[in-house]
Amino acid sequence: MLANVYHGAGRRSWDEVADPEITDEADAIIRVSATSICGVDLHILRGDVPSVRPGRVLGHEAVGIVDEVGDRVRTIGPGDRVLVSCVSACGNCQSCREGRYGQCRGGGGWLLGHTYDGTQAEFAKIPFADHSTYCLPPSVTDEEALILADTMPTGYEVGVLKAHVQPGDVVVVIGAGPIGLAAMLGARLFSPSHIIAIDHADRRLEAAKQFGADVTVNNSVSDPLDVVRALTDRQGADVAIEAVGEGETFELAVRLTRPGAHVANIGVHGKPAALHLEDQWTRDLTVTTGLVDTYSIPTLMRLLANRQIETSKLVTHRFDLDDIAEAYDVVSRSGETGALKVVLSSEA
Amino acid sequence: MLANVYHGAGRRSWDEVADPEITDEADAIIRVSATSICGVDLHILRGDVPSVRPGRVLGHEAVGIVDEVGDRVRTIGPGDRVLVSCVSACGNCQSCREGRYGQCRGGGGWLLGHTYDGTQAEFAKIPFADHSTYCLPPSVTDEEALILADTMPTGYEVGVLKAHVQPGDVVVVIGAGPIGLAAMLGARLFSPSHIIAIDHADRRLEAAKQFGADVTVNNSVSDPLDVVRALTDRQGADVAIEAVGEGETFELAVRLTRPGAHVANIGVHGKPAALHLEDQWTRDLTVTTGLVDTYSIPTLMRLLANRQIETSKLVTHRFDLDDIAEAYDVVSRSGETGALKVVLSSEA
Amino acid sequence: MLANVYHGAGRRSWDEVADPEITDEADAIIRVSATSICGVDLHILRGDVPSVRPGRVLGHEAVGIVDEVGDRVRTIGPGDRVLVSCVSACGNCQSCREGRYGQCRGGGGWLLGHTYDGTQAEFAKIPFADHSTYCLPPSVTDEEALILADTMPTGYEVGVLKAHVQPGDVVVVIGAGPIGLAAMLGARLFSPSHIIAIDHADRRLEAAKQFGADVTVNNSVSDPLDVVRALTDRQGADVAIEAVGEGETFELAVRLTRPGAHVANIGVHGKPAALHLEDQWTRDLTVTTGLVDTYSIPTLMRLLANRQIETSKLVTHRFDLDDIAEAYDVVSRSGETGALKVVLSSEA
Amino acid sequence: MLANVYHGAGRRSWDEVADPEITDEADAIIRVSATSICGVDLHILRGDVPSVRPGRVLGHEAVGIVDEVGDRVRTIGPGDRVLVSCVSACGNCQSCREGRYGQCRGGGGWLLGHTYDGTQAEFAKIPFADHSTYCLPPSVTDEEALILADTMPTGYEVGVLKAHVQPGDVVVVIGAGPIGLAAMLGARLFSPSHIIAIDHADRRLEAAKQFGADVTVNNSVSDPLDVVRALTDRQGADVAIEAVGEGETFELAVRLTRPGAHVANIGVHGKPAALHLEDQWTRDLTVTTGLVDTYSIPTLMRLLANRQIETSKLVTHRFDLDDIAEAYDVVSRSGETGALKVVLSSEA
Repeated sequence: MLANVYHGAGRRSWDEVADPEITDEADAIIRVSATSICGVDLHILRGDVPSVRPGRVLGHEAVGIVDEVGDRVRTIGPGDRVLVSCVSACGNCQSCREGRYGQCRGGGGWLLGHTYDGTQAEFAKIPFADHSTYCLPPSVTDEEALILADTMPTGYEVGVLKAHVQPGDVVVVIGAGPIGLAAMLGARLFSPSHIIAIDHADRRLEAAKQFGADVTVNNSVSDPLDVVRALTDRQGADVAIEAVGEGETFELAVRLTRPGAHVANIGVHGKPAALHLEDQWTRDLTVTTGLVDTYSIPTLMRLLANRQIETSKLVTHRFDLDDIAEAYDVVSRSGETGALKVVLSSEA
Repeated sequence: MLANVYHGAGRRSWDEVADPEITDEADAIIRVSATSICGVDLHILRGDVPSVRPGRVLGHEAVGIVDEVGDRVRTIGPGDRVLVSCVSACGNCQSCREGRYGQCRGGGGWLLGHTYDGTQAEFAKIPFADHSTYCLPPSVTDEEALILADTMPTGYEVGVLKAHVQPGDVVVVIGAGPIGLAAMLGARLFSPSHIIAIDHADRRLEAAKQFGADVTVNNSVSDPLDVVRALTDRQGADVAIEAVGEGETFELAVRLTRPGAHVANIGVHGKPAALHLEDQWTRDLTVTTGLVDTYSIPTLMRLLANRQIETSKLVTHRFDLDDIAEAYDVVSRSGETGALKVVLSSEA
Repeated sequence: MLANVYHGAGRRSWDEVADPEITDEADAIIRVSATSICGVDLHILRGDVPSVRPGRVLGHEAVGIVDEVGDRVRTIGPGDRVLVSCVSACGNCQSCREGRYGQCRGGGGWLLGHTYDGTQAEFAKIPFADHSTYCLPPSVTDEEALILADTMPTGYEVGVLKAHVQPGDVVVVIGAGPIGLAAMLGARLFSPSHIIAIDHADRRLEAAKQFGADVTVNNSVSDPLDVVRALTDRQGADVAIEAVGEGETFELAVRLTRPGAHVANIGVHGKPAALHLEDQWTRDLTVTTGLVDTYSIPTLMRLLANRQIETSKLVTHRFDLDDIAEAYDVVSRSGETGALKVVLSSEA
Repeated sequence: MLANVYHGAGRRSWDEVADPEITDEADAIIRVSATSICGVDLHILRGDVPSVRPGRVLGHEAVGIVDEVGDRVRTIGPGDRVLVSCVSACGNCQSCREGRYGQCRGGGGWLLGHTYDGTQAEFAKIPFADHSTYCLPPSVTDEEALILADTMPTGYEVGVLKAHVQPGDVVVVIGAGPIGLAAMLGARLFSPSHIIAIDHADRRLEAAKQFGADVTVNNSVSDPLDVVRALTDRQGADVAIEAVGEGETFELAVRLTRPGAHVANIGVHGKPAALHLEDQWTRDLTVTTGLVDTYSIPTLMRLLANRQIETSKLVTHRFDLDDIAEAYDVVSRSGETGALKVVLSSEA
């Protein structure tokens, strides 16, 4: 089959490789209908994720048709149209029993396109298939469902739910990339009174308005603190969600909140951030971090089928799977291209 | 009356001052039976708390007999023996309505010995008396109750409850001073499987054993990480409570925990701490900070009356109120004297 | 002044009575701008509420202008436009400290139009005014705010919040009277996938569609169980809210839910209901009851000001205060008149 | 092998039957070291549980040595000493993902000694073995662990945790049989101020004192309401746990609680109970029911290994597995024999 293979920092190509085969009775093979490129894939290509070895097929988001299943797979079978979660969960370890699949200690976690071959390919082998795939209702398109593989659950679980967004809250989301926008979509489900989107790119802020932001601040131009104070009787935001991954934006998230607030970090950080305990020790702050577990997929799927979230709004570009080189190029130049999520589809 | 008056950095004296008078109908005057010296009082004396102005009577912990009450005080009356909370709460603002008295926006908060004259005196005026005093049951001594003014609720609310200690948990408490020990006493109420006390003073660690620690680590000698890992199948602690107030110990608290853990900061910090988001962004961490609200006083009082917490174990030294100079000396040299809480009593 | 006075079962009249006067420093007098008639007032008139004595001015919902305040009232003053909560809370007892104002043990609770003279009058005295009145933002009309005195917080607190409505839930509301409709409005804030309204009056079911119900069942015609099963893969509803107050509808609520569901009772019951423990002991059921506390008024006010709930949809009839007899008539024949909430306004 | 076989109402015998064999790759066969007789087994024998068909091997509690495992069992292997949960969970359905194993919709639930052959035998086949067995630490005896198969998790999960027992609470437990006593053991972990045991048998009440009850009431002699009121300033209990299974005791549980209390039903009911909504609709009541999930086994095992719960106190009689007829006799006459849990052990 053809697959997007990583060949070390800066190098990938669309290669002919061996078809995946079932090696564990819990595996399933899917024929990929749609896959995507995640910000993490760009990190891998830059060589920032050494646990990804050359020769690896990249990609951890997919919708596909089940081709074959191992003997112990019970919930899906050949011909089923399924969503593949970005997290493969053993389902049995203590972490999985608590729904913390991202912390699986039974051999699961983020495997696809990381330590296992991934989904940017014609076929993909999915480990722990019963726990890691979801049958799709007919009313949901491949493209819509694809956003539930990683982006939407990340914004919802690690952002919205950890931050306990409540009706009437003032919610700040810093970073209007795909994950930040997904957090806005998810926050809207709880009827906050305001969602304030902060980014330094006007283009992204413009997009944020489509995702539920009713106030936008370009923080390279204005001070978001003034805006937040004006909206909150000078108290600060009830919730701040960090979706950038820099120390500076994390510190900004903390600074914008009222006493008793929640700050949920979603961003992928490469360096420590300063936690200003000299100010914050008295302020009843709660800071959370987390890896996506995708336990919310069934709920999000129901909301999607019911048209309560419109995930396809995140899709800005569409390509044939064969044109993955071009897709990578568009994603890597998102500043110019305005790319949020690109969808790579196989020709049916 | 006589009172302990602050005269600027490094200076305090036991002076004759005017008796307090009721100036607001919500005030009460109490005749102080017992008061104490808190670590914060030492900070004030060093000049670290500029909001305390010279001329201020210090002290925010007291048990006393009600002498007089303002017209709108309903729940206490002359002759009642009461505990005075370190937090004075208006009871009406949104913060107070949510039980977050430490964040009172209606004129309350930490007032006594701060922006109001305090309790290290023969008499003290207590603002918002209905919300800020608690009648004592006969079975509870002045000394036992005094620990509920600040120390015990701080360890319990900001440490134990914010960290969600649960049966079977492995709980780390860093810092075995009065607040850390109070956190251990409080944590025991939830039947953790282990409490690991960490301090650099063997004397304090010895004391910790009396407060529920079953493992102690002198972190100037051994690496607590080894101990925690050995007890937790290499996973890390379920809960870490920081009760020192330094960046280093906060970072240690984070480092000792498992994914999904709670880190509750109680320590008073003067500088930022590093939050190692480059490691922690994936680890489902929850960090909390907070000022004591003393909402737990009624519960703690019931536990005390029922002999389920023994707060008098924290009292290491007792003085007459007149001998407050000596008491300050003992507290300020706690490294040598082993002072935890000192009780200053008026001669009946 | 003129007021609606109860004269024993079946009798009320619009009488000249003495103006209310401040008798406690926590009282406020308001000049009533708008008041309403609640189902409970009809119960009183039938003689079902013996704690209401003849001579009592009825009514517990009001918006008005502050006329005078007692010495200890701090948060409102003459000329302020305020909402009066149906619950008067001392703010100081343990129940009030936990936000359970409806259970106030310090002399508060449901007082107005019950054991105190109420709001169906030109003027009303409001006890515990600081805790029981809310200044109105200019963007909110009297009529909109009036619904927050009782109806909307009851549906939201006792129904929606106690039942933990979550995104994607299937929510059943039995009873499409004012409280049931308020529960639907409130449930919508949490993005359930479906709200199923059940009533035996088609007219009310028609109204329910304006309040967020997307499925309606006339249970004198069809079996709601079929509808619920069809929508929930035969599992049952996630949440059922009882807003009728009869044993039969309570039992229906229980029967319609899946294992692990929440049943929130809001209805005013006069008789016991059967709890079918022979079926339910295994089904992880949670049943809650409750009196409104109105702790949610600040949140609801923010949502109202922000146009996220449209409470005026509940107002079907409007009268001058003088025409209260006619208003009572309309409300008491709601089956014919379609009355939900009537608003009685003073002529400005 | 030999096994205790049900032959229809009133009849059981210790018969030679075929050894169990692995029929699904998720099965395990264990050689039973210790098993017990549960109250439910007596119900079955009376013919009250028609889903149990003649020919069925009874028993759903066991500790044993793994003899053989199916191909997809990963967490245990031959020779391991394991606890068998009374609930067999598929681990994959939505109920299992939420930890509600008792509600498994993937083919699990209460299977052993019900719709599958059970554990009162020399060998037993355990379905879904990875999710339903727990390796035992050496410091825990077979007998101690056996109580974690059903009794202790039932009291803890369905009673203590659903009722949210908190430090300082007054907790009523009605019924001092094995499950009620387990609830008392479990409640103690949260440091309630009082546990009040209610039963009509003095012998059981005497036992209750060993399990943490500090007040006992024989409700055929005294009115528990007086006792509860005296201990709670006339408010009522914070928590009531029903562990009898009759309408009368359920109603008593509700009647003994304060407004805002939790009533957790554990009892197995055969008839409806009256829920006095005419009194309770205003009282902020929460009533819960539930089937045990045994999700708490890992926590309880840690507490047991750490000597924080002493489950062997529940064991009153010990027999060889061969003497099961005598054991059933002792259990069925528990009123005379004082039997709580009997342990049936194979001769090593």
